[in-house]
Amino acid sequence: MPRYKAIVSYDGSDFFGFQVQTKNGVERQRTVQGELNKAVNQMAKNPTPAIKVVGASRTDTGVHAFGQVVHFDLPFDINVIGVRKGLNTLLPKDIIIQSVDQVANDFHARFNTHAKRYVYRVSTQDFTDPFKRFYTGHFQWQLDVERIKIALPDLLGEHDFASFAASGNQTITTIRTITRADLKVNNDEQELVFTFEGNAFLYNQIRIMVGVLLEIGNGRRDVHDIIRLIAVKDREQARFTAPASGLYLDEIYYD
Amino acid sequence: MPRYKAIVSYDGSDFFGFQVQTKNGVERQRTVQGELNKAVNQMAKNPTPAIKVVGASRTDTGVHAFGQVVHFDLPFDINVIGVRKGLNTLLPKDIIIQSVDQVANDFHARFNTHAKRYVYRVSTQDFTDPFKRFYTGHFQWQLDVERIKIALPDLLGEHDFASFAASGNQTITTIRTITRADLKVNNDEQELVFTFEGNAFLYNQIRIMVGVLLEIGNGRRDVHDIIRLIAVKDREQARFTAPASGLYLDEIYYD
Repeated sequence: MPRYKAIVSYDGSDFFGFQVQTKNGVERQRTVQGELNKAVNQMAKNPTPAIKVVGASRTDTGVHAFGQVVHFDLPFDINVIGVRKGLNTLLPKDIIIQSVDQVANDFHARFNTHAKRYVYRVSTQDFTDPFKRFYTGHFQWQLDVERIKIALPDLLGEHDFASFAASGNQTITTIRTITRADLKVNNDEQELVFTFEGNAFLYNQIRIMVGVLLEIGNGRRDVHDIIRLIAVKDREQARFTAPASGLYLDEIYYD
Repeated sequence: MPRYKAIVSYDGSDFFGFQVQTKNGVERQRTVQGELNKAVNQMAKNPTPAIKVVGASRTDTGVHAFGQVVHFDLPFDINVIGVRKGLNTLLPKDIIIQSVDQVANDFHARFNTHAKRYVYRVSTQDFTDPFKRFYTGHFQWQLDVERIKIALPDLLGEHDFASFAASGNQTITTIRTITRADLKVNNDEQELVFTFEGNAFLYNQIRIMVGVLLEIGNGRRDVHDIIRLIAVKDREQARFTAPASGLYLDEIYYD
Protein backbone atom coordinates (compact mmCIF):
# COMPACT_ATOMS: atom_id res chain seq x y z
CA MET A 1 0.00 0.00 0.00
CA PRO A 2 1.55 3.34 -1.02
CA ARG A 3 2.08 5.84 1.78
CA TYR A 4 1.10 9.49 1.51
CA LYS A 5 2.25 12.51 3.51
CA ALA A 6 -0.08 15.52 3.68
CA ILE A 7 0.35 19.04 5.00
CA VAL A 8 -2.86 20.11 6.75
CA SER A 9 -4.17 23.50 7.93
CA TYR A 10 -7.04 23.84 10.32
CA ASP A 11 -8.94 26.36 12.35
CA GLY A 12 -8.86 24.67 15.75
CA SER A 13 -11.77 26.69 17.20
CA ASP A 14 -14.42 24.03 16.71
CA PHE A 15 -12.32 20.94 17.45
CA PHE A 16 -11.57 19.10 20.64
CA GLY A 17 -7.96 18.99 19.55
CA PHE A 18 -6.22 16.88 16.94
CA GLN A 19 -6.35 13.42 18.44
CA VAL A 20 -9.34 11.09 18.26
CA GLN A 21 -10.84 10.54 21.70
CA THR A 22 -13.03 7.58 22.38
CA LYS A 23 -15.26 6.81 25.32
CA ASN A 24 -16.44 3.20 25.52
CA GLY A 25 -15.15 2.83 21.98
CA VAL A 26 -17.29 5.70 20.67
CA GLU A 27 -15.96 8.99 19.30
CA ARG A 28 -17.98 11.63 21.08
CA GLN A 29 -15.99 14.72 20.25
CA ARG A 30 -15.21 16.39 16.97
CA THR A 31 -11.46 16.06 16.36
CA VAL A 32 -9.20 16.86 13.40
CA GLN A 33 -7.91 13.29 13.24
CA GLY A 34 -11.47 11.96 13.38
CA GLU A 35 -12.49 14.11 10.39
CA LEU A 36 -9.35 13.11 8.47
CA ASN A 37 -9.99 9.42 9.16
CA LYS A 38 -13.54 9.76 7.87
CA ALA A 39 -12.49 11.53 4.67
CA VAL A 40 -9.58 9.18 3.86
CA ASN A 41 -11.70 6.07 4.44
CA GLN A 42 -14.56 7.48 2.41
CA MET A 43 -12.18 8.25 -0.47
CA ALA A 44 -10.85 4.68 -0.27
CA LYS A 45 -14.41 3.25 -0.21
CA ASN A 46 -14.27 2.22 3.46
CA PRO A 47 -11.79 -0.68 3.43
CA THR A 48 -11.48 -3.21 6.28
CA PRO A 49 -9.51 -2.71 8.41
CA ALA A 50 -10.07 1.04 8.31
CA ILE A 51 -7.17 3.31 7.31
CA LYS A 52 -5.67 5.26 10.19
CA VAL A 53 -4.35 8.78 9.70
CA VAL A 54 -1.25 9.42 11.84
CA GLY A 55 -0.45 13.00 12.86
CA ALA A 56 2.87 14.58 13.76
CA SER A 57 1.61 16.65 16.65
CA ARG A 58 -1.35 16.30 19.01
CA THR A 59 -2.54 19.88 19.11
CA ASP A 60 -4.93 20.74 21.94
CA THR A 61 -8.51 21.98 21.84
CA GLY A 62 -8.61 25.41 20.19
CA VAL A 63 -5.03 25.27 18.86
CA HIS A 64 -4.66 26.00 15.14
CA ALA A 65 -2.37 24.68 12.43
CA PHE A 66 -0.95 26.08 9.25
CA GLY A 67 1.34 23.11 8.70
CA GLN A 68 0.34 19.99 10.61
CA VAL A 69 1.73 16.86 8.91
CA VAL A 70 -0.02 13.50 8.67
CA HIS A 71 0.61 10.22 6.88
CA PHE A 72 -1.73 7.45 5.77
CA ASP A 73 -1.67 4.42 3.46
CA LEU A 74 -4.08 3.99 0.59
CA PRO A 75 -5.03 0.62 -0.93
CA PHE A 76 -4.30 2.01 -4.42
CA ASP A 77 -1.74 4.18 -6.14
CA ILE A 78 -3.35 7.43 -7.22
CA ASN A 79 -2.19 10.84 -8.34
CA VAL A 80 -1.31 13.11 -5.39
CA ILE A 81 -3.27 16.05 -6.84
CA GLY A 82 -6.28 13.76 -6.97
CA VAL A 83 -5.79 12.81 -3.31
CA ARG A 84 -5.60 16.47 -2.31
CA LYS A 85 -8.67 17.55 -4.29
CA GLY A 86 -10.65 14.49 -3.24
CA LEU A 87 -9.94 14.99 0.45
CA ASN A 88 -10.65 18.73 0.31
CA THR A 89 -14.03 17.98 -1.22
CA LEU A 90 -14.85 15.47 1.52
CA LEU A 91 -13.46 17.41 4.50
CA PRO A 92 -15.36 20.07 6.46
CA LYS A 93 -14.39 23.65 5.71
CA ASP A 94 -12.29 24.15 8.83
CA ILE A 95 -9.69 21.64 7.59
CA ILE A 96 -7.77 22.01 4.36
CA ILE A 97 -5.13 19.81 2.78
CA GLN A 98 -2.39 22.09 1.48
CA SER A 99 -0.36 19.44 -0.33
CA VAL A 100 0.04 15.68 -0.69
CA ASP A 101 3.21 13.75 -1.52
CA GLN A 102 3.83 10.07 -1.94
CA VAL A 103 6.56 8.98 0.49
CA ALA A 104 8.62 5.90 1.36
CA ASN A 105 6.80 3.23 3.37
CA ASP A 106 9.01 3.84 6.40
CA PHE A 107 8.12 7.54 6.59
CA HIS A 108 6.37 8.30 9.87
CA ALA A 109 4.75 11.70 10.49
CA ARG A 110 5.43 11.61 14.23
CA PHE A 111 8.69 9.67 14.64
CA ASN A 112 10.73 11.23 11.81
CA THR A 113 10.30 14.86 12.84
CA HIS A 114 13.50 16.87 13.01
CA ALA A 115 12.14 20.18 14.28
CA LYS A 116 8.90 22.11 14.72
CA ARG A 117 7.96 25.73 14.44
CA TYR A 118 5.09 27.32 16.37
CA VAL A 119 3.66 30.82 16.21
CA TYR A 120 1.82 32.49 19.09
CA ARG A 121 -0.30 35.62 18.48
CA VAL A 122 -1.17 37.95 21.35
CA SER A 123 -3.69 40.74 20.97
CA THR A 124 -2.80 43.70 23.20
CA GLN A 125 -5.95 45.71 22.63
CA ASP A 126 -7.94 47.18 25.47
CA PHE A 127 -10.83 44.82 24.74
CA THR A 128 -10.60 41.78 22.49
CA ASP A 129 -11.27 42.48 18.85
CA PRO A 130 -14.38 40.38 18.10
CA PHE A 131 -12.66 38.99 15.00
CA LYS A 132 -9.67 37.82 17.01
CA ARG A 133 -11.28 36.11 19.96
CA PHE A 134 -10.62 32.60 18.63
CA TYR A 135 -7.36 33.49 16.87
CA THR A 136 -5.17 35.23 19.43
CA GLY A 137 -4.38 35.17 23.09
CA HIS A 138 -5.32 38.42 24.79
CA PHE A 139 -3.21 40.43 27.22
CA GLN A 140 -4.71 43.77 28.12
CA TRP A 141 -2.25 44.83 30.81
CA GLN A 142 0.78 47.02 30.30
CA LEU A 143 3.65 45.48 28.36
CA ASP A 144 7.23 46.63 27.93
CA VAL A 145 8.19 44.87 24.72
CA GLU A 146 11.89 45.62 25.25
CA ARG A 147 11.91 43.50 28.41
CA ILE A 148 10.46 40.56 26.47
CA LYS A 149 13.10 40.98 23.78
CA ILE A 150 15.84 40.83 26.42
CA ALA A 151 14.29 37.69 27.94
CA LEU A 152 13.78 35.69 24.73
CA PRO A 153 17.42 34.59 24.19
CA ASP A 154 17.37 32.99 27.66
CA LEU A 155 15.20 30.26 26.12
CA LEU A 156 17.69 29.38 23.39
CA GLY A 157 19.81 26.26 23.53
CA GLU A 158 19.51 22.89 25.26
CA HIS A 159 17.85 23.12 28.67
CA ASP A 160 15.76 21.11 31.06
CA PHE A 161 12.36 22.73 30.57
CA ALA A 162 10.63 20.87 33.45
CA SER A 163 9.29 24.19 34.79
CA PHE A 164 7.59 24.73 31.45
CA ALA A 165 5.81 21.37 31.12
CA ALA A 166 2.16 20.92 32.08
CA SER A 167 1.32 17.97 34.28
CA GLY A 168 -0.12 15.92 31.41
CA ASN A 169 3.41 15.57 30.08
CA GLN A 170 4.49 11.93 29.83
CA THR A 171 7.90 12.10 28.21
CA ILE A 172 10.95 10.44 29.74
CA THR A 173 13.11 13.53 29.61
CA THR A 174 12.20 17.19 29.86
CA ILE A 175 15.38 18.30 28.11
CA ARG A 176 14.68 20.11 24.85
CA THR A 177 16.59 22.36 22.47
CA ILE A 178 15.16 25.67 21.30
CA THR A 179 16.82 27.16 18.22
CA ARG A 180 14.61 30.16 17.61
CA ALA A 181 12.63 32.41 19.94
CA ASP A 182 11.69 35.79 18.57
CA LEU A 183 9.03 38.45 18.62
CA LYS A 184 7.54 40.65 15.94
CA VAL A 185 5.45 43.61 17.04
CA ASN A 186 2.61 44.49 14.71
CA ASN A 187 1.52 47.96 15.82
CA ASP A 188 -1.23 48.32 13.20
CA GLU A 189 -2.92 45.19 14.46
CA GLN A 190 -1.94 45.76 18.10
CA GLU A 191 -0.45 42.29 18.12
CA LEU A 192 2.66 40.53 19.34
CA VAL A 193 3.67 37.55 17.21
CA PHE A 194 6.09 35.08 18.82
CA THR A 195 7.91 32.42 16.79
CA PHE A 196 9.52 29.39 18.45
CA GLU A 197 11.49 26.65 16.80
CA GLY A 198 12.99 23.60 18.45
CA ASN A 199 13.59 19.88 18.16
CA ALA A 200 10.44 19.11 20.12
CA PHE A 201 8.28 20.74 22.79
CA LEU A 202 6.77 19.50 26.04
CA TYR A 203 3.04 19.45 26.73
CA ASN A 204 1.83 23.09 26.85
CA GLN A 205 5.43 24.32 26.72
CA ILE A 206 4.86 27.13 24.23
CA ARG A 207 1.81 28.42 26.06
CA ILE A 208 3.64 28.37 29.41
CA MET A 209 6.69 30.12 27.89
CA VAL A 210 4.42 32.82 26.43
CA GLY A 211 2.74 33.20 29.83
CA VAL A 212 6.12 33.76 31.49
CA LEU A 213 7.26 36.17 28.75
CA LEU A 214 4.10 38.27 29.13
CA GLU A 215 4.61 38.43 32.91
CA ILE A 216 8.18 39.57 32.29
CA GLY A 217 6.88 42.24 29.89
CA ASN A 218 4.38 43.33 32.52
CA GLY A 219 7.11 43.68 35.16
CA ARG A 220 5.71 40.92 37.38
CA ARG A 221 8.88 38.86 36.87
CA ASP A 222 12.54 39.72 36.71
CA VAL A 223 13.71 40.20 33.14
CA HIS A 224 15.99 37.13 33.45
CA ASP A 225 13.52 34.99 35.42
CA ILE A 226 13.66 32.33 32.68
CA ILE A 227 17.21 31.41 33.76
CA ARG A 228 15.94 30.88 37.31
CA LEU A 229 12.88 28.92 36.12
CA ILE A 230 15.05 26.58 34.03
CA ALA A 231 17.25 25.99 37.10
CA VAL A 232 14.46 25.27 39.62
CA LYS A 233 12.64 22.66 37.45
CA ASP A 234 9.33 23.38 39.19
CA ARG A 235 6.14 23.76 37.18
CA GLU A 236 4.41 25.56 40.05
CA GLN A 237 6.67 28.57 39.49
CA ALA A 238 5.41 29.25 35.97
CA ARG A 239 1.85 30.13 36.81
CA PHE A 240 0.07 31.46 33.75
CA THR A 241 -0.56 29.32 30.66
CA ALA A 242 -1.45 31.53 27.68
CA PRO A 243 -4.74 30.48 26.03
CA ALA A 244 -4.89 27.90 23.24
CA SER A 245 -6.55 30.34 20.82
CA GLY A 246 -3.24 32.15 20.08
CA LEU A 247 -1.22 29.05 19.22
CA TYR A 248 -0.48 27.89 15.66
CA LEU A 249 1.52 24.82 14.66
CA ASP A 250 3.34 26.50 11.79
CA GLU A 251 5.74 24.02 10.22
CA ILE A 252 7.27 20.61 10.84
CA TYR A 253 10.69 19.69 9.49
CA TYR A 254 11.73 16.14 8.64
CA ASP A 255 15.12 14.47 8.40
CA MET B 1 -33.02 60.54 30.12
CA PRO B 2 -29.71 61.24 28.36
CA ARG B 3 -29.25 59.56 24.98
CA TYR B 4 -26.08 57.73 23.99
CA LYS B 5 -24.75 56.80 20.58
CA ALA B 6 -22.36 53.85 20.35
CA ILE B 7 -20.20 52.45 17.55
CA VAL B 8 -20.30 48.67 17.69
CA SER B 9 -18.16 45.95 16.04
CA TYR B 10 -19.21 42.36 15.89
CA ASP B 11 -18.28 39.04 14.41
CA GLY B 12 -21.60 38.03 12.86
CA SER B 13 -20.73 34.32 12.59
CA ASP B 14 -22.63 33.19 15.66
CA PHE B 15 -25.60 35.56 15.46
CA PHE B 16 -28.95 35.25 13.72
CA GLY B 17 -28.45 38.78 12.46
CA PHE B 18 -28.71 42.10 14.23
CA GLN B 19 -32.41 42.39 14.93
CA VAL B 20 -34.19 40.73 17.85
CA GLN B 21 -36.58 38.04 16.63
CA THR B 22 -39.40 36.85 18.82
CA LYS B 23 -41.69 33.87 18.46
CA ASN B 24 -44.75 33.94 20.72
CA GLY B 25 -43.06 36.79 22.54
CA VAL B 26 -39.93 34.74 23.26
CA GLU B 27 -36.47 35.45 21.89
CA ARG B 28 -35.26 32.12 20.58
CA GLN B 29 -32.27 33.18 18.54
CA ARG B 30 -29.05 34.85 19.56
CA THR B 31 -29.01 38.33 17.99
CA VAL B 32 -26.70 41.32 18.33
CA GLN B 33 -29.54 43.59 19.39
CA GLY B 34 -30.68 41.01 21.95
CA GLU B 35 -27.21 40.92 23.52
CA LEU B 36 -26.96 44.71 23.51
CA ASN B 37 -30.40 45.02 25.14
CA LYS B 38 -29.36 42.60 27.87
CA ALA B 39 -26.08 44.41 28.60
CA VAL B 40 -27.59 47.92 28.60
CA ASN B 41 -30.44 46.89 30.89
CA GLN B 42 -28.11 45.03 33.21
CA MET B 43 -25.86 48.11 33.44
CA ALA B 44 -28.92 50.23 34.24
CA LYS B 45 -30.11 47.71 36.89
CA ASN B 46 -33.04 46.43 34.82
CA PRO B 47 -35.44 49.41 34.82
CA THR B 48 -39.14 49.11 33.92
CA PRO B 49 -39.95 49.57 31.12
CA ALA B 50 -36.79 48.00 29.71
CA ILE B 51 -34.39 50.13 27.70
CA LYS B 52 -34.44 49.42 23.97
CA VAL B 53 -31.28 49.62 21.89
CA VAL B 54 -31.99 50.96 18.39
CA GLY B 55 -29.63 50.01 15.56
CA ALA B 56 -28.88 51.83 12.31
CA SER B 57 -28.82 48.77 10.12
CA ARG B 58 -30.40 45.33 10.37
CA THR B 59 -27.51 43.17 9.28
CA ASP B 60 -28.39 39.60 8.30
CA THR B 61 -27.27 36.31 9.81
CA GLY B 62 -23.50 35.92 9.37
CA VAL B 63 -22.90 39.54 8.31
CA HIS B 64 -20.20 41.37 10.28
CA ALA B 65 -19.77 44.95 11.42
CA PHE B 66 -16.82 47.18 12.09
CA GLY B 67 -18.96 50.26 12.58
CA GLN B 68 -22.61 49.52 13.33
CA VAL B 69 -24.24 52.45 15.16
CA VAL B 70 -26.85 52.18 17.90
CA HIS B 71 -28.54 54.57 20.29
CA PHE B 72 -30.16 54.06 23.68
CA ASP B 73 -31.35 56.13 26.63
CA LEU B 74 -30.05 55.63 30.14
CA PRO B 75 -31.94 56.63 33.31
CA PHE B 76 -28.83 58.42 34.59
CA ASP B 77 -26.09 60.66 33.28
CA ILE B 78 -22.79 58.81 33.38
CA ASN B 79 -19.36 59.23 31.88
CA VAL B 80 -19.17 57.87 28.31
CA ILE B 81 -15.92 55.99 29.02
CA GLY B 82 -17.69 54.27 31.91
CA VAL B 83 -20.56 53.28 29.59
CA ARG B 84 -18.11 51.80 27.07
CA LYS B 85 -16.09 49.88 29.66
CA GLY B 86 -19.17 48.70 31.51
CA LEU B 87 -20.86 47.40 28.38
CA ASN B 88 -17.70 45.69 27.11
CA THR B 89 -17.42 43.88 30.41
CA LEU B 90 -21.03 42.71 30.20
CA LEU B 91 -21.13 41.84 26.48
CA PRO B 92 -20.05 38.50 24.99
CA LYS B 93 -16.68 38.54 23.25
CA ASP B 94 -18.06 38.64 19.73
CA ILE B 95 -19.45 42.15 20.28
CA ILE B 96 -17.33 45.14 21.20
CA ILE B 97 -18.26 48.75 21.82
CA GLN B 98 -15.66 50.90 20.05
CA SER B 99 -16.85 54.25 21.37
CA VAL B 100 -19.73 55.94 23.16
CA ASP B 101 -20.88 59.56 22.84
CA GLN B 102 -23.67 61.43 24.51
CA VAL B 103 -25.98 62.88 21.83
CA ALA B 104 -29.03 65.12 21.53
CA ASN B 105 -32.35 63.54 22.46
CA ASP B 106 -33.59 63.73 18.88
CA PHE B 107 -30.65 61.74 17.51
CA HIS B 108 -31.88 58.51 15.93
CA ALA B 109 -29.41 55.82 14.82
CA ARG B 110 -31.61 54.65 11.95
CA PHE B 111 -33.47 57.74 10.75
CA ASN B 112 -30.61 60.26 10.77
CA THR B 113 -28.20 58.28 8.59
CA HIS B 114 -26.68 60.19 5.73
CA ALA B 115 -24.65 57.43 4.06
CA LYS B 116 -23.29 53.96 4.69
CA ARG B 117 -20.14 52.18 3.69
CA TYR B 118 -19.89 48.40 3.28
CA VAL B 119 -16.91 46.20 2.54
CA TYR B 120 -17.15 42.80 0.87
CA ARG B 121 -14.21 40.35 1.00
CA VAL B 122 -13.92 37.54 -1.54
CA SER B 123 -11.37 34.76 -1.17
CA THR B 124 -10.23 33.52 -4.58
CA GLN B 125 -8.21 30.55 -3.34
CA ASP B 126 -8.59 27.10 -4.84
CA PHE B 127 -10.09 25.81 -1.58
CA THR B 128 -11.32 28.00 1.22
CA ASP B 129 -8.67 28.96 3.75
CA PRO B 130 -9.96 27.42 7.01
CA PHE B 131 -9.36 30.73 8.78
CA LYS B 132 -11.49 32.63 6.27
CA ARG B 133 -14.56 30.45 6.00
CA PHE B 134 -16.71 32.73 8.18
CA TYR B 135 -14.99 35.96 7.11
CA THR B 136 -15.02 36.00 3.31
CA GLY B 137 -17.16 34.96 0.42
CA HIS B 138 -15.43 32.35 -1.73
CA PHE B 139 -15.18 32.30 -5.53
CA GLN B 140 -12.92 29.59 -6.85
CA TRP B 141 -13.59 30.00 -10.56
CA GLN B 142 -11.53 32.07 -12.96
CA LEU B 143 -11.72 35.84 -12.56
CA ASP B 144 -10.57 38.61 -14.84
CA VAL B 145 -10.21 41.47 -12.39
CA GLU B 146 -9.93 44.04 -15.20
CA ARG B 147 -13.47 43.22 -16.34
CA ILE B 148 -14.78 43.88 -12.83
CA LYS B 149 -12.93 47.20 -12.70
CA ILE B 150 -14.57 48.26 -15.98
CA ALA B 151 -18.00 47.24 -14.64
CA LEU B 152 -17.84 48.98 -11.23
CA PRO B 153 -18.46 52.58 -12.42
CA ASP B 154 -21.75 51.41 -13.98
CA LEU B 155 -23.10 51.19 -10.43
CA LEU B 156 -22.30 54.81 -9.57
CA GLY B 157 -25.00 57.48 -9.40
CA GLU B 158 -28.74 57.47 -8.80
CA HIS B 159 -30.46 54.43 -10.28
CA ASP B 160 -33.45 52.20 -9.75
CA PHE B 161 -31.81 49.11 -8.26
CA ALA B 162 -34.95 46.92 -8.36
CA SER B 163 -32.97 44.15 -10.08
CA PHE B 164 -30.61 44.14 -7.09
CA ALA B 165 -33.17 43.88 -4.28
CA ALA B 166 -34.05 40.57 -2.65
CA SER B 167 -37.73 39.76 -2.29
CA GLY B 168 -37.80 40.58 1.44
CA ASN B 169 -37.36 44.21 0.51
CA GLN B 170 -40.20 46.36 1.79
CA THR B 171 -39.17 49.88 0.88
CA ILE B 172 -41.44 52.19 -1.10
CA THR B 173 -38.85 53.08 -3.70
CA THR B 174 -35.95 51.07 -5.09
CA ILE B 175 -34.09 54.18 -6.22
CA ARG B 176 -30.74 54.56 -4.49
CA THR B 177 -27.55 56.55 -5.01
CA ILE B 178 -24.14 54.88 -4.97
CA THR B 179 -21.20 57.24 -4.54
CA ARG B 180 -18.36 54.75 -4.30
CA ALA B 181 -17.81 51.31 -5.81
CA ASP B 182 -14.24 50.13 -5.94
CA LEU B 183 -12.05 47.08 -5.72
CA LYS B 184 -8.69 46.41 -4.11
CA VAL B 185 -6.86 43.25 -5.06
CA ASN B 186 -4.79 41.72 -2.28
CA ASN B 187 -2.55 39.21 -4.05
CA ASP B 188 -0.76 38.05 -0.89
CA GLU B 189 -4.03 37.06 0.69
CA GLN B 190 -5.65 35.97 -2.59
CA GLU B 191 -8.51 38.28 -1.82
CA LEU B 192 -10.68 40.84 -3.57
CA VAL B 193 -11.94 43.60 -1.31
CA PHE B 194 -14.90 45.61 -2.59
CA THR B 195 -15.96 48.90 -1.01
CA PHE B 196 -19.40 50.41 -1.61
CA GLU B 197 -20.76 53.69 -0.32
CA GLY B 198 -24.22 55.08 -0.85
CA ASN B 199 -27.14 56.90 0.76
CA ALA B 200 -28.84 53.60 1.58
CA PHE B 201 -28.99 50.06 0.24
CA LEU B 202 -31.84 47.67 -0.51
CA TYR B 203 -32.23 44.30 1.16
CA ASN B 204 -29.29 42.09 0.05
CA GLN B 205 -28.25 44.73 -2.50
CA ILE B 206 -24.51 44.56 -1.81
CA ARG B 207 -24.45 40.77 -1.93
CA ILE B 208 -26.42 40.72 -5.20
CA MET B 209 -24.14 43.39 -6.72
CA VAL B 210 -21.07 41.37 -5.73
CA GLY B 211 -22.64 38.25 -7.25
CA VAL B 212 -23.18 40.08 -10.56
CA LEU B 213 -19.65 41.56 -10.49
CA LEU B 214 -18.10 38.11 -9.94
CA GLU B 215 -20.11 36.70 -12.84
CA ILE B 216 -18.86 39.58 -15.00
CA GLY B 217 -15.30 38.78 -13.90
CA ASN B 218 -15.85 35.14 -14.77
CA GLY B 219 -17.11 36.03 -18.28
CA ARG B 220 -20.60 34.70 -17.68
CA ARG B 221 -22.03 38.19 -18.16
CA ASP B 222 -21.29 41.03 -20.56
CA VAL B 223 -18.88 43.52 -19.01
CA HIS B 224 -21.60 46.22 -19.07
CA ASP B 225 -24.44 43.94 -17.99
CA ILE B 226 -25.10 46.18 -14.96
CA ILE B 227 -26.50 48.89 -17.27
CA ARG B 228 -28.94 46.35 -18.71
CA LEU B 229 -29.86 45.00 -15.24
CA ILE B 230 -30.63 48.50 -13.96
CA ALA B 231 -32.86 49.06 -16.99
CA VAL B 232 -34.87 45.80 -16.78
CA LYS B 233 -35.77 46.13 -13.05
CA ASP B 234 -36.13 42.37 -12.68
CA ARG B 235 -34.63 40.56 -9.70
CA GLU B 236 -34.75 37.22 -11.52
CA GLN B 237 -31.99 38.40 -13.85
CA ALA B 238 -29.43 38.79 -11.05
CA ARG B 239 -29.15 35.21 -10.02
CA PHE B 240 -26.29 34.76 -7.58
CA THR B 241 -26.30 36.37 -4.11
CA ALA B 242 -22.78 36.34 -2.63
CA PRO B 243 -22.68 34.75 0.85
CA ALA B 244 -23.22 36.76 4.04
CA SER B 245 -19.81 35.77 5.45
CA GLY B 246 -17.94 38.26 3.22
CA LEU B 247 -20.02 41.31 4.12
CA TYR B 248 -18.96 43.96 6.66
CA LEU B 249 -20.93 47.05 7.66
CA ASP B 250 -17.95 49.39 7.74
CA GLU B 251 -19.12 52.88 8.62
CA ILE B 252 -22.30 54.93 8.95
CA TYR B 253 -22.32 58.66 8.33
CA TYR B 254 -24.76 61.03 10.01
CA ASP B 255 -26.06 64.48 9.05
